[in-house]
Amino acid sequence: MKKYIYPKTNEWEKLTERPTQSFKEIEETTKLIFKDIQTNGDNAVAKYTSVFDGVVIEDIRVSQTEFLEANQQISAELKVAIATAKANITKFHMIQKRSKIEVETTMGVNCWMEKRPIEKVGLYIPGGTAPLFSTVLMLAIPAQIAGCKEIVLCSPPDKNGKINPAILFTAQLCGVTQILKVGGIQAIAGLTFGTNTIPKVSKIFGPGNQFVTVAKQVATQYGVAIDMPAGPSELLVFADESANPRFVASDLLSQAEHGTDSQVIFATTSKSFLKLVENELKSQLTVLTRKEIAEKAIENSKMILFKSAEEALDFINLYAPEHFIICSKKEEYFVENISNAGSVFIGDYTPESAGDYASGTNHTLPTNGYAKNYSGVSLDSFLKSITFQKISKEGILNLGKTIEIMAEAEGLQAHKNAVSIRLKALQNEY
Amino acid sequence: MKKYIYPKTNEWEKLTERPTQSFKEIEETTKLIFKDIQTNGDNAVAKYTSVFDGVVIEDIRVSQTEFLEANQQISAELKVAIATAKANITKFHMIQKRSKIEVETTMGVNCWMEKRPIEKVGLYIPGGTAPLFSTVLMLAIPAQIAGCKEIVLCSPPDKNGKINPAILFTAQLCGVTQILKVGGIQAIAGLTFGTNTIPKVSKIFGPGNQFVTVAKQVATQYGVAIDMPAGPSELLVFADESANPRFVASDLLSQAEHGTDSQVIFATTSKSFLKLVENELKSQLTVLTRKEIAEKAIENSKMILFKSAEEALDFINLYAPEHFIICSKKEEYFVENISNAGSVFIGDYTPESAGDYASGTNHTLPTNGYAKNYSGVSLDSFLKSITFQKISKEGILNLGKTIEIMAEAEGLQAHKNAVSIRLKALQNEY
Repeated sequence: MKKYIYPKTNEWEKLTERPTQSFKEIEETTKLIFKDIQTNGDNAVAKYTSVFDGVVIEDIRVSQTEFLEANQQISAELKVAIATAKANITKFHMIQKRSKIEVETTMGVNCWMEKRPIEKVGLYIPGGTAPLFSTVLMLAIPAQIAGCKEIVLCSPPDKNGKINPAILFTAQLCGVTQILKVGGIQAIAGLTFGTNTIPKVSKIFGPGNQFVTVAKQVATQYGVAIDMPAGPSELLVFADESANPRFVASDLLSQAEHGTDSQVIFATTSKSFLKLVENELKSQLTVLTRKEIAEKAIENSKMILFKSAEEALDFINLYAPEHFIICSKKEEYFVENISNAGSVFIGDYTPESAGDYASGTNHTLPTNGYAKNYSGVSLDSFLKSITFQKISKEGILNLGKTIEIMAEAEGLQAHKNAVSIRLKALQNEY
Repeated sequence: MKKYIYPKTNEWEKLTERPTQSFKEIEETTKLIFKDIQTNGDNAVAKYTSVFDGVVIEDIRVSQTEFLEANQQISAELKVAIATAKANITKFHMIQKRSKIEVETTMGVNCWMEKRPIEKVGLYIPGGTAPLFSTVLMLAIPAQIAGCKEIVLCSPPDKNGKINPAILFTAQLCGVTQILKVGGIQAIAGLTFGTNTIPKVSKIFGPGNQFVTVAKQVATQYGVAIDMPAGPSELLVFADESANPRFVASDLLSQAEHGTDSQVIFATTSKSFLKLVENELKSQLTVLTRKEIAEKAIENSKMILFKSAEEALDFINLYAPEHFIICSKKEEYFVENISNAGSVFIGDYTPESAGDYASGTNHTLPTNGYAKNYSGVSLDSFLKSITFQKISKEGILNLGKTIEIMAEAEGLQAHKNAVSIRLKALQNEY
């Protein structure tokens, strides 16, 4: 890890920089694939599946037999673990439900707001070496609680035309209404336009490689909403001499194994503790199965020594980490004053892994500094607010003049007239 | 208005179409201006203000004298109206506040979620003929309630280098922290990158012409969030024979005067009532000051006769109107079953103008069918959620095994290890 000892504040901006990702090259290709799928539907989807996934699939819908097979292939132990995680994630997302809020702002003027589900949502789950069934939990559970009518899951097929059994098992468990064997740009384009087989959805969720990331951006140009802009996963740990260096090192490595582009930052106010963590990292790194990946990510990572907790906090708010672990005797100070972070893990026994899998919070979080202006996925991500108002005769008599004056001042006479015509009718009535 | 009598459901999709807006031509120009302002800051901003607004401004900050002048120029009557509107909008947005939600998902595993303000926000208020001080209310009030630290308002200067006094007055009243005389693409680019005079913000709100719309889209490519994608304003009225045709016509016209591209739809189940509204439209149109605009918008608008309220509702949910007025004996049915709308106005005495100005609800709403997947501006638009968790020793003993099994199944050994290392430490302890 690169070490920074008491960096000056004018150097901080530089330290918060993430490796810039430019996907300009693949944007054009992505747009061409979108056009092709918009025009040629399922045929075009099949073509790209054959090209990119190297497999020809007759029917991209998962068969009943495949579901049964998946169910048999998952160990009893894993089934129990998934059920436990599901119970916790359900609890945490259920308490996010909110009933209608209402207020009579002026006598006779009733205003309220209700949340109603986004009817059709698409969940993208990557394939590849790490079958992210945990992401199925994180997206399908709140979608189901929200009441989304159609929950469509797309995941790329393997060379045998199959989807990982853990993904199938979890999707069925969490109320996904349709599962399709399609990945990459062609999946996102399919969900954007709809084909004979893939339903058109209003919002697309989920992680993915650079092609999926660009495809989601392109989808927004066709009216589809997305969960949030994506970037490589990140962790910032603040720990001081009150913490356990072995635990801290294990957390830094858990982030580092995600990919060589993972962002890992260790911030501290103790020089001696920094040394302890550095040594622990070296020794724990040697025994990891994904050692090559983690090693590379760690090389690009930063250890930063700050003069005080206050200074460290200012830096952390500037960096806006996706995951923020606090192991410090000043944990209350950090919890109270953190402004920009996706999810916060507090204390020696709260590894990021807990939130990644099973504690109940959502693991789909803003990266790349987006914690300054975006929330992570929550129940609200699957709902939208609608405001309502009902004004009585008394209400419009009370508020009418105000509206007339304001509309007049903005030069919008027909806006004024819609009120005047009602006030006049009421004058005749009374 | 174009009339559609009992259109078949396979014709509905066509009827929900908005005029396609393609801004491809101005996208390149916009990107060039962004680059220029990113590199040359205030100098470039001044250049574009001179070119586009036709005025050279020494200092784009509003002087104390200008504030005093604005205060004098606003009539006492308008001040009272603005204060009344402010009180109602404040009430409606205050009740949206939500305290922390918390749950112990597993014994010893505490998870909670809190909302914290987006620290720096930019509000864009168009200049021109209609000085939208009402939009200042709609954006600055929730920003202030949310606790945003910097609330920067940009609005284009007129030929004399001034901002409309009603905008200045309202901005001061609602806690805007900085007001800058800058508009168009240069304002959005300035807020995106920051210059010596314009602060860099995390999220940009507000309406604007096609240049502002494109500039906001471009801003998102530089990490700035925006309130929502923009499009021309829309109104759909459902009314049956129980309603007042004069009121209905006045509401349709209030939307039509916004611009020639305004979308106005009148849906009904009564052929005779349709005729009544049609006649009323003609007679009310003749006396409007913005008659030319409204006439054009009305020409492009649609009157649709449906066979039943159920059929009408299905269409309305497909159309997803920004504003939806219900004047019907079946109002409860519509209120309960509307899925896709920005804001709903119920009954004979609830004109859209009420929500545009003073009832309390927000008038920044999703257009162009975006009510299917986006919410209007609310208090939440100025906040983001952060999740927190704190796990005790008991908690990790309870949940550890579950996390280990899931991490193992996803092939992420370091994730598992972060738990195992803690479980082992606790085994030694007990």
